[in-house]
Amino acid sequence: MRTYLDCIPCFMSQALRTGRLVGLSDKKILDLLAELGKGIEGISLDNPPPKTAVMVYDLIARYVGIADPFKRVKQEATEKALALYPRLKRNILDSKRPLGQAIRIATLGNVIDFGVSSSYDLDTEIHEMLGQSFGRWDEETFTEAVDRADWILYLGDNAGETVFDRLLIETLARPTTYVVREAPIINDATREDALRAGLEGVADIISSGCSAPGTVMDQCSPEFLDLFKKAPVIISKGQGNYETLSDIDAPIFFLLKAKCDVVARHLGVKRGDLVLAARSLDPS
Amino acid sequence: MRTYLDCIPCFMSQALRTGRLVGLSDKKILDLLAELGKGIEGISLDNPPPKTAVMVYDLIARYVGIADPFKRVKQEATEKALALYPRLKRNILDSKRPLGQAIRIATLGNVIDFGVSSSYDLDTEIHEMLGQSFGRWDEETFTEAVDRADWILYLGDNAGETVFDRLLIETLARPTTYVVREAPIINDATREDALRAGLEGVADIISSGCSAPGTVMDQCSPEFLDLFKKAPVIISKGQGNYETLSDIDAPIFFLLKAKCDVVARHLGVKRGDLVLAARSLDPS
Repeated sequence: MRTYLDCIPCFMSQALRTGRLVGLSDKKILDLLAELGKGIEGISLDNPPPKTAVMVYDLIARYVGIADPFKRVKQEATEKALALYPRLKRNILDSKRPLGQAIRIATLGNVIDFGVSSSYDLDTEIHEMLGQSFGRWDEETFTEAVDRADWILYLGDNAGETVFDRLLIETLARPTTYVVREAPIINDATREDALRAGLEGVADIISSGCSAPGTVMDQCSPEFLDLFKKAPVIISKGQGNYETLSDIDAPIFFLLKAKCDVVARHLGVKRGDLVLAARSLDPS
Repeated sequence: MRTYLDCIPCFMSQALRTGRLVGLSDKKILDLLAELGKGIEGISLDNPPPKTAVMVYDLIARYVGIADPFKRVKQEATEKALALYPRLKRNILDSKRPLGQAIRIATLGNVIDFGVSSSYDLDTEIHEMLGQSFGRWDEETFTEAVDRADWILYLGDNAGETVFDRLLIETLARPTTYVVREAPIINDATREDALRAGLEGVADIISSGCSAPGTVMDQCSPEFLDLFKKAPVIISKGQGNYETLSDIDAPIFFLLKAKCDVVARHLGVKRGDLVLAARSLDPS
């Protein structure tokens, strides 16, 4: 998926929200926005948004003066999610169709995202989920593909969401390789975040080699690309992975909450919809 | 009201929406956003947003190549509102409290605004109004002030909304001076738009001398400032006038729909609320 013009004001909003989140002064945030503004002419609409977002968050990191301004936020999100883990596990085990429920819960975990909005209410979201309509939900194709697969490549997204991924991986009960970002970017999960979520016990954890908030193929490591090519089923979590992989021909299943109009339109769903979309069914 | 950091991504969104509305190519809009981005460092947060918006819309006009890109949009809005006039007039006359109903309808007319959103559904809004809650509604203070006033200074906002203003002016039945912008800016009403709405028959029409989408006092004409100083009651329509006059000590009643979080927060209401706020009651 390419960058749309709508992404540009959104980059500005992300910089503003992040600046506030990490406690920058108004003066410093204004300077940050001004510098970001000067960078607009360098933006290529041909790139997927996460590739551009790297410039935005590098700039933010420089203004904040630390490489990982979201470190604390990520830890808190993971702890919050771990506290929910026993309840969610019970919910899945008590369900008539545990796999279907685990997929929904894993998708719901994608609500944890500071790139798009700085606040979310996990409890409320979980409660509302029970009655929520799904914009697109290729569950049958997904379960068939998983049934045939002898292993799964799982592309993680945000810290905290990792705990929800763990629940799905446990329910899938297939050898799984869990992929994290190479270095901290926004609240995306790195190896450290995956370990904190307890994923080590249920999956191999590897880095994609990419430090963008998505999976930019030409920035990934040969090791990751090799696994990507061989994987019989790829689960891709979140918008950033969707934005960078929607045009890649591979057996990908995108699990995400469509958080902005641009992505929702691209998927043919409404903003806010939870989505399980089979790449093979969608050649766009 | 000063400019908030939140206004900066919003200026970007306004430029994008307007560029699309007037049919600029994606390439030209990207150039426009890049040039706007370079202008961010010149923005002073001490100015009210409409003062900054002039820079934004001057830039847009330069890219479009015409001074009044909203001319057609304004004419259509006025024609649409004139078509509703007989129904709204009947609605007011049949009401138990015609003045109260006319105030609500005039406030509702403020939904016509391309600066904040490029689409609105007047019919739907009018229908929903009947059940809508009002965030702040100083109607008693307003009617008392109007009862004592021998004339009214009425600061218009957008073209089309002018027709709704006419209904309120007819119901108030007081000598009224209706104030328009000096020159075209966004879809704000100029003399031409006021004439097209039929306001000439019910009010004196004058320009404020200011061409910003608001009433920036130090850009207004001595003639207007003299009237402003003498007016026993000032009705101020819309966000732009609120943003520029909220700190001015005068007998102003602000009638608007709070269209963004920044203004809503400043007024202590929820976004989307219709507001009738007496300035004298709110020294902030």
